[in-house]
Amino acid sequence: MTAAVRGDSEGQRDVGGDGREPITAAAVAAQLGGTLIGDGSVTIEGIAPLDRAEPHQLSFLAHPRYVHWFTTSRAGAVLLSPDLAQTPGTPSTRIIVAKPVDAMVSLLARFHRREPRAAGVHPSAVIGSDVHLGAGVTIDPFVVIGDGASIGDGSWLSAHAVVGAGSILGRDVRLHAHAVVYPFTELGDRVTLHAGASVGREGFGFVPQAGGVVRIPHAGRCILEHDVEVGANSCVDRGSVDDTIIGAGTKIDNLVQIAHNVRVGRGCFFASHAGIAGSTRIGDGVQVGGQAGVGGHVTIGTGANLAGGASVIGNVPAGETWSGYPARPHREHLRASAALARLAKIIRPLEQLLQSSVASTPPARERPSDRAAE
Amino acid sequence: MTAAVRGDSEGQRDVGGDGREPITAAAVAAQLGGTLIGDGSVTIEGIAPLDRAEPHQLSFLAHPRYVHWFTTSRAGAVLLSPDLAQTPGTPSTRIIVAKPVDAMVSLLARFHRREPRAAGVHPSAVIGSDVHLGAGVTIDPFVVIGDGASIGDGSWLSAHAVVGAGSILGRDVRLHAHAVVYPFTELGDRVTLHAGASVGREGFGFVPQAGGVVRIPHAGRCILEHDVEVGANSCVDRGSVDDTIIGAGTKIDNLVQIAHNVRVGRGCFFASHAGIAGSTRIGDGVQVGGQAGVGGHVTIGTGANLAGGASVIGNVPAGETWSGYPARPHREHLRASAALARLAKIIRPLEQLLQSSVASTPPARERPSDRAAE
Amino acid sequence: MTAAVRGDSEGQRDVGGDGREPITAAAVAAQLGGTLIGDGSVTIEGIAPLDRAEPHQLSFLAHPRYVHWFTTSRAGAVLLSPDLAQTPGTPSTRIIVAKPVDAMVSLLARFHRREPRAAGVHPSAVIGSDVHLGAGVTIDPFVVIGDGASIGDGSWLSAHAVVGAGSILGRDVRLHAHAVVYPFTELGDRVTLHAGASVGREGFGFVPQAGGVVRIPHAGRCILEHDVEVGANSCVDRGSVDDTIIGAGTKIDNLVQIAHNVRVGRGCFFASHAGIAGSTRIGDGVQVGGQAGVGGHVTIGTGANLAGGASVIGNVPAGETWSGYPARPHREHLRASAALARLAKIIRPLEQLLQSSVASTPPARERPSDRAAE
Repeated sequence: MTAAVRGDSEGQRDVGGDGREPITAAAVAAQLGGTLIGDGSVTIEGIAPLDRAEPHQLSFLAHPRYVHWFTTSRAGAVLLSPDLAQTPGTPSTRIIVAKPVDAMVSLLARFHRREPRAAGVHPSAVIGSDVHLGAGVTIDPFVVIGDGASIGDGSWLSAHAVVGAGSILGRDVRLHAHAVVYPFTELGDRVTLHAGASVGREGFGFVPQAGGVVRIPHAGRCILEHDVEVGANSCVDRGSVDDTIIGAGTKIDNLVQIAHNVRVGRGCFFASHAGIAGSTRIGDGVQVGGQAGVGGHVTIGTGANLAGGASVIGNVPAGETWSGYPARPHREHLRASAALARLAKIIRPLEQLLQSSVASTPPARERPSDRAAE
Repeated sequence: MTAAVRGDSEGQRDVGGDGREPITAAAVAAQLGGTLIGDGSVTIEGIAPLDRAEPHQLSFLAHPRYVHWFTTSRAGAVLLSPDLAQTPGTPSTRIIVAKPVDAMVSLLARFHRREPRAAGVHPSAVIGSDVHLGAGVTIDPFVVIGDGASIGDGSWLSAHAVVGAGSILGRDVRLHAHAVVYPFTELGDRVTLHAGASVGREGFGFVPQAGGVVRIPHAGRCILEHDVEVGANSCVDRGSVDDTIIGAGTKIDNLVQIAHNVRVGRGCFFASHAGIAGSTRIGDGVQVGGQAGVGGHVTIGTGANLAGGASVIGNVPAGETWSGYPARPHREHLRASAALARLAKIIRPLEQLLQSSVASTPPARERPSDRAAE
Repeated sequence: MTAAVRGDSEGQRDVGGDGREPITAAAVAAQLGGTLIGDGSVTIEGIAPLDRAEPHQLSFLAHPRYVHWFTTSRAGAVLLSPDLAQTPGTPSTRIIVAKPVDAMVSLLARFHRREPRAAGVHPSAVIGSDVHLGAGVTIDPFVVIGDGASIGDGSWLSAHAVVGAGSILGRDVRLHAHAVVYPFTELGDRVTLHAGASVGREGFGFVPQAGGVVRIPHAGRCILEHDVEVGANSCVDRGSVDDTIIGAGTKIDNLVQIAHNVRVGRGCFFASHAGIAGSTRIGDGVQVGGQAGVGGHVTIGTGANLAGGASVIGNVPAGETWSGYPARPHREHLRASAALARLAKIIRPLEQLLQSSVASTPPARERPSDRAAE
């Protein structure tokens, strides 16, 4: 795998950091197995949405709601689904494919400009003692690697990345600029940390003491398994009495917080600003929406889905979708929201109705369940 | 404009990084066109609120609610609005102006300590090949600029700023310490990135594949137009099939997330922790409150106002203020919140009322609209 | 205190960055004053929760809910509370202590691996003119210190930390990698900034002007008193017309935002993603939950507790717990949430009830209080 990475890198350098390769509409149709209508000789140099595409760009129409953009689009060629193939509009070169969005995505790599990658260790980097550097690593300017750390084959550490003492990075790890791996942290193969991501910090735990509080020593580890990705400026803290573990293949967006002792399963997704408090356990395949928060010491079952902004304070069963503040099953939350909107229109009549009926009704006694709810 | 900037910088250096210039109360009154009461010879060296101002500082009283601070304030002089001019209190030197807050702001520059700016390129900086450095740029220690990047005249890149390969920065761009411009990103004139801001990262998009998911190549650009400001540790991702664009003059606070393919109009404001999901379009002059979230693929109309903490999951018409979770028009949200507070007091009697009336009422049939709400 | 720190540091270096010291179960029991049951010669090299502990690790059982893990735990020894001492399970070496969790925390330092600390100033650091470096400071690679800054005795600035011109740091300050102290910022003794934290940035304040908006010059200071800790990628902005002050002993988690002119008392806690808008005052001992937001210009009383996700838009009295969106006293919020859940089940019958009674009831007139609520 190391060789493959270096090959990519070398190919990249040949085109000066720009991987974009022109292609004709006919070639696009052939590659996608689509049906070409119109002039197949149109040259495509990039991709853009219908309202902004220019004559050298490819666009796509996958849903009737965007037909108004199609009508006047300047796109050189357009991918359309079969049911929209005859939509009236300016684009005359059309490629009919079953799934235009998937087809588009499959073409993106062709128009994607990859970051150029240098080889070897930049002379400005500061490498500690007893550091293992694998074959084919790229160490960019001002990288700092602490004593005893290990960097696996093919890894690429961008400018100013910091790897603390004793940390272990697998193969083909990618640290973007300013990523920080605190000491004694473990990253599997193909882990990616984006700019400013911070992993392995001692978590937010204090104990009271005379004159204030003192930090709990965080004796646990912080482990990111294979293929984990951590977004820009996101944070994963190390554990105190347990390890913090992010399961293989889990993807974390920007500005996410994962606290100490949290165990995240495999193949999860955390959208931006999601926050997970300490010692919570998250099963495999869980999806956490943007700005969703999960309290400490709870369990989120396998395959659960937490809606954006959900505020979860208890356990969520496997496979369920929860939303709201506090979060409850999504269907219940929707039902409650709808009821609340309707309530606003009738709250005054309801109060009046009760007032008018109060003379003939015995006083309501508070039930135990009312108190329990508090 | 470059000359002006260098002039500022030179002037700045003359005062050792401290722009504070003492001024007498009489001179303040003259500059503001205000009416001086008391001793005009008092020397003012700084600004502070009433409860903390000292005899060498200027303060202001613009609202009756702060009168209790005024009573015992030690401020050397105070700006007051005409209606509060006679407020009893210790400050004897008073300057009466129509708008004390605006007047105060107009004085701030005098007491503001500007960061000293060095000239030229620090020898520790690592500049790639084919990089264009404009006239009068400041490149501070450990800055890294990738191959083919362009830095406009008068720009100032602070310590550890990183500009990726192929990125283009306009004139008078200001990158604070640790700001990261990913490769192939475009910044207009007078763009400011604060410490740790990250722009141009490939967005959070994946497609399923055998054995897991793979990243969608992000072939779109990330463009910040003129006069955009991005706060500390905020993130603006590049596009996948579209560009991510932040319109001219838009100001973004700290810890904000703008996802891939988002188009933000001109003159918008995003308060801290706001998050905008992918492919959403935001019109000109939109104000997004702190911790507000906007879902993907929606449209926020020109001049709309999203309250702090609002969770927006659908389109918001131009000019409207929305709030709540999920967000709705602010008036509706307030009405619903008020209704809910009143409901808590009557829910039990309402349930009892229904129970007592159930014998004489036919069973409620679920209406289609109830189901649709789910 | 400086000497003590250097002593720690030297001790640390002796063990190669790894402070873990094996101990027998008998010695653990003796140290904790606990009662040993079973084989006291078991050697303990670390700590782990019951479900993951291995034979060389110590674990703990403090609550009946974890008994199922205890049953099959492989832990070499387990701390148990007296009431759980006889719980059936595989661990045969047991140490009975009154408070297993507290006991465990007291042992953590023994198993905690401390980051190795070098001595002196790394040659790559860039130190400005007129900088004061105290005795026993550690300045790691690529640190940048601006002109006129002062670094107190015993302070440790990790790789890439930036201290702006004119900033003043107390004794034993700890800046982790990539922490940024903007110019003219003041940090007390034993202040800690974690990776990517940013303090002293000019706040998010603009005034309209012809052709757009301009920044308000931020003439106020940013002051972090003794023993303040700021988490990874968190931000504390400097003041405009006031200072921003974080009181002594206050602890701030990751990704928190404190805006300009905010005054925070002593001994407060801010969990991750909390955000405080400008000019708000927060008393001593306030606890702010994760993702909680506080609007601008409000006052949070001493000892108040803001629940996770709370959206506070008004003053909160001392000692109260508030939650919800918008936040209200926690008891009221719980009562409202419970009422809402019950409402969903009866909204349709209520509407029907009103319809059936409408013929015999005079139309409800809107009260002034209904309008005020909007």
